[in-house]
Amino acid sequence: MNLEAQWVVGFTDGEGCFHVGIAKHPDMTAGVQVLPEFTIVQHEVDVQVLHALKAYFGVGVVRSNHGDRMAYRVRKLEHLHDVICPFFMKHKLRTRKHLDFLNFRRVVLMMKKGEHLTPEGLEAIRAIAEQMNVRRSR
Amino acid sequence: MNLEAQWVVGFTDGEGCFHVGIAKHPDMTAGVQVLPEFTIVQHEVDVQVLHALKAYFGVGVVRSNHGDRMAYRVRKLEHLHDVICPFFMKHKLRTRKHLDFLNFRRVVLMMKKGEHLTPEGLEAIRAIAEQMNVRRSR
Repeated sequence: MNLEAQWVVGFTDGEGCFHVGIAKHPDMTAGVQVLPEFTIVQHEVDVQVLHALKAYFGVGVVRSNHGDRMAYRVRKLEHLHDVICPFFMKHKLRTRKHLDFLNFRRVVLMMKKGEHLTPEGLEAIRAIAEQMNVRRSR
Repeated sequence: MNLEAQWVVGFTDGEGCFHVGIAKHPDMTAGVQVLPEFTIVQHEVDVQVLHALKAYFGVGVVRSNHGDRMAYRVRKLEHLHDVICPFFMKHKLRTRKHLDFLNFRRVVLMMKKGEHLTPEGLEAIRAIAEQMNVRRSR
């Protein structure tokens, strides 16, 4: 299955999720870990679409999610920075998910510069992540 | 907002619904009414995407759905037959929703020939509609 860029954008507008998790992690300098991830969840009957997305981007993994759900997921910072963010900058999402993406990208760029390792940077990321979660829970 | 065909396909793979309703209707010859419809529901903040879909296809309406949801909906048989079905035959859906679409199209073609007005045709349509509903409730 070969996907086209605009199909990937449309499907992400429908099913994609840009999420910034913040988890306590005593081993980290700031005591917390920032975990940005791009995810698309589907019922297992459509797992071939998730594998097609993985092949399209050339990064990420396909894993089981909850119950009979599977997820395509990209978590590595360099893959988000080098592949996922440039793609959705070039091919813009058409729904409000574009705003989630822009916030997500801000966090990825800050992390690339190591700003999540400073208290100020972490606080800024936390504020961005909270905004994103409010919008997603609508 | 100008949409591209592949965006429309990807978004429909994520958010679209092909449904065949069968409602009791004492005025109709067979006592029931067959109601095929193509729908895409979004939160009202993304209503502009629904208007873009309406402009793209040139048929259908944008109406409020439940609560803060809006829907793009095509119900007219000739619009389903002449516009929606040919589009998704030319630009194939990538998920299992393609199978729903093929069943949906079978019903539309049968209705175009008036087969829903005979007991045999109606029974066949009812069987197709039940299959579609089973798959959607997964």
